[in-house]
Amino acid sequence: MKLYTFFRGSSPFRLRIALNLKGLPYEAIAVHLGKGEHRKSDFGAINPQQLLPALVLDDGHVLNQSLAIIEYLDETHPNPPLIPKEPKARARVRSLSLLVACEIHPLNNARTLAYLRKQMGQSEEQVSAWYRHWIADGLAKLEAEMTRGPGTGKFSHGDAPTMADCCLVPQIFNAQRFNCELAPYPTLMRVYAECMKLEAFDRAQPSKQPDAE
Amino acid sequence: MKLYTFFRGSSPFRLRIALNLKGLPYEAIAVHLGKGEHRKSDFGAINPQQLLPALVLDDGHVLNQSLAIIEYLDETHPNPPLIPKEPKARARVRSLSLLVACEIHPLNNARTLAYLRKQMGQSEEQVSAWYRHWIADGLAKLEAEMTRGPGTGKFSHGDAPTMADCCLVPQIFNAQRFNCELAPYPTLMRVYAECMKLEAFDRAQPSKQPDAE
Repeated sequence: MKLYTFFRGSSPFRLRIALNLKGLPYEAIAVHLGKGEHRKSDFGAINPQQLLPALVLDDGHVLNQSLAIIEYLDETHPNPPLIPKEPKARARVRSLSLLVACEIHPLNNARTLAYLRKQMGQSEEQVSAWYRHWIADGLAKLEAEMTRGPGTGKFSHGDAPTMADCCLVPQIFNAQRFNCELAPYPTLMRVYAECMKLEAFDRAQPSKQPDAE
Repeated sequence: MKLYTFFRGSSPFRLRIALNLKGLPYEAIAVHLGKGEHRKSDFGAINPQQLLPALVLDDGHVLNQSLAIIEYLDETHPNPPLIPKEPKARARVRSLSLLVACEIHPLNNARTLAYLRKQMGQSEEQVSAWYRHWIADGLAKLEAEMTRGPGTGKFSHGDAPTMADCCLVPQIFNAQRFNCELAPYPTLMRVYAECMKLEAFDRAQPSKQPDAE
């Protein structure tokens, strides 16, 4: 399999964790988001969404959107499971994942921040305030959800890592990179620390990628 | 089942379509997003994410995040299916759904626009330009994905409605409300028109809700 990735991107980071947890080897192909390589026609021919990640299967089939790819991997390589068996538990893991993927990340990714800077003429200070606002808003919702339980265990759901942890960890990395206050989220930080003890999470982190700067 | 909904919200609209397609009756409870009712403590006690929709099952269990709820409904009420059986087809339907739910909607929902107006002091004209920028960006990606195929049929995927259509239709409604140019997306508009011929989609639209203004 070929993974189109960028060391700092949150969505490819999710997928690197999932691939590592599943024990699936892949060839990493770096697409530099900062240099706009994802908008060039050769990548567009592979992924018409022009977004990372994209996973090209050995038969040439292209998958995109990180959560859709993780679901695919879980269906085709069931062990270890990244989504539990019981429908309400599955709904919870998906909801925790979507809370990161829909409510936090889209507001803070590179192209959104670029629009605020260029088209709206916002200063770095204003852009940082925006970033931290949505981090704080989203992580507070996630903390509330995870402390309400039941379901939260050693990890976001239960005592083994799931898709929810694949989403949580990259979001915490991003928050740290922008110096966001993380003390208000003790449950999230406890789970984050637990995840980072695992080789699958550690090896997926930005600084350990071949394209890291 | 009780559905916490708001007539104009895009995410509850997705779920109303899915419930109608499944033939599942529900009691609608309106939560006025414009008046901030979702941020009040009584709704927070039901849904700690303080977002719509929330679906309360007959046993009192609360589900949230529209795509997680649609997946749950599809697992517990399999007919008619809203997600196909084959893993690559499932990945495609999820990817099309996530393209709307992650790349377009979060940038254009009420709280995002409110931040641009209040905290960033942007004019209505600037807010509209932002709205239309992300609509155009996201719908172009979706059109590219749907014309590339294979998979697109009478509907977004195949000849029966799926979760992807539950996401597409509310997004087109929103685009129309903000007078976005839709001519560049003939495939999306053809599928949209096909969907709106179905009673399940028609009955779910904002103007036909009990809380419509």
